[in-house]
Amino acid sequence: MNTSVHEPEPSFPSRRGVNKPLPVKNPKSKDRSAERSSKRQDLVRYGTELLTEQGYQATGIDQVLKKVGVPKGSFYHFFKSKDEFGSAVIENYVDFYAKKMDKIFNTPSTEPLQRLKNFVEKAKYDMVRFEFRRGCLIGNMGQELASINDGFRVQLEEVLVSWEIKVTACLQEAIDRLDISGQTDAAALSRFFWIGWEGAILRSKLTKSVQPIDHFADLFFSKVAK
Amino acid sequence: MNTSVHEPEPSFPSRRGVNKPLPVKNPKSKDRSAERSSKRQDLVRYGTELLTEQGYQATGIDQVLKKVGVPKGSFYHFFKSKDEFGSAVIENYVDFYAKKMDKIFNTPSTEPLQRLKNFVEKAKYDMVRFEFRRGCLIGNMGQELASINDGFRVQLEEVLVSWEIKVTACLQEAIDRLDISGQTDAAALSRFFWIGWEGAILRSKLTKSVQPIDHFADLFFSKVAK
Repeated sequence: MNTSVHEPEPSFPSRRGVNKPLPVKNPKSKDRSAERSSKRQDLVRYGTELLTEQGYQATGIDQVLKKVGVPKGSFYHFFKSKDEFGSAVIENYVDFYAKKMDKIFNTPSTEPLQRLKNFVEKAKYDMVRFEFRRGCLIGNMGQELASINDGFRVQLEEVLVSWEIKVTACLQEAIDRLDISGQTDAAALSRFFWIGWEGAILRSKLTKSVQPIDHFADLFFSKVAK
Repeated sequence: MNTSVHEPEPSFPSRRGVNKPLPVKNPKSKDRSAERSSKRQDLVRYGTELLTEQGYQATGIDQVLKKVGVPKGSFYHFFKSKDEFGSAVIENYVDFYAKKMDKIFNTPSTEPLQRLKNFVEKAKYDMVRFEFRRGCLIGNMGQELASINDGFRVQLEEVLVSWEIKVTACLQEAIDRLDISGQTDAAALSRFFWIGWEGAILRSKLTKSVQPIDHFADLFFSKVAK
């Protein structure tokens, strides 16, 4: 696969570990509005990291503020509520993930099923890179919050549907090329992929191994998308 | 399917809702040891309900104690730590779930693939019964705790493997009867089923609908276990 998809993503920083403080920036180098916007982005970025590893309810706002160097009382200058912050974190993750997916799927020179296989490989690479601590923010928050927060429930399902649409387009190309039997519904296959995928990421976290991802992908490609 | 599998389960009480107190029992009716054992069982039982709906970290011990009518200071008479309590909750859920599965799978007069289909129907029934609030305690706790608690991570994966073994036996019977192609590995199919299954339960919670379960099961039976 194209190794360029393995480059570090700037908006979702990597193995720094959740307890190390950010380097202090010089506020004089930016005007006030730019600084505010930058601080907000830092809060969202490190919120993404913390929420993915620790969960939403277990992550205190104070922990995020401390890390970014924002005074305790200033949180509400940036967000109306913790829920608004959580929503911004989801949006940030979705932007980051859309870029990641586009980099893999918007590659006409690669055969469509190979693109989906490259997506699987990239996910395995990231699981190992983050030592199986993170998995998928959407799956994590979905499992934690679907029952207790209807706003998040709807937002998270919409994200998964948007990912289904990207994979549907890829699978439709494979069907059009007859790489998959023509009697197959690309949207149905994509939905099946995404339903199972979040389960595979969960099992990968539980086993600290990519084996469940490989197992799911192997049978998906040999039995379902064929 | 056999409607008897739809009976309420005594060890995992139902739609009471997590905030309603238990009826007070008369302590004089039991000796001290029996009462202690009964209180412990109540703590575990209602812990199961609360942890499944709210998650582990968000559930305070105080909330469980209050519900069961145990004084705040008495928790450590029953459990050494919250983690030991969490472990006992998992064990209780596993016992309850093993009985539920055995009731469905230990039915020689039902064709093996139909047994697995009955399992799917029972899960759908329960998702609706609990208004999509609960899902699977093991999937919920796995998603929440795999990254941050190694003891739970190992215990939860063991549970899923034990469920895989039950479904493997069922699928092996289907293979032996040639209901599934003889060149299929029952253990591999069962693992695929369980990997995807936890994803289907998550999506069912997110959509408040059984559609993702049906979607996963339909393609599993038509494309994978065939």
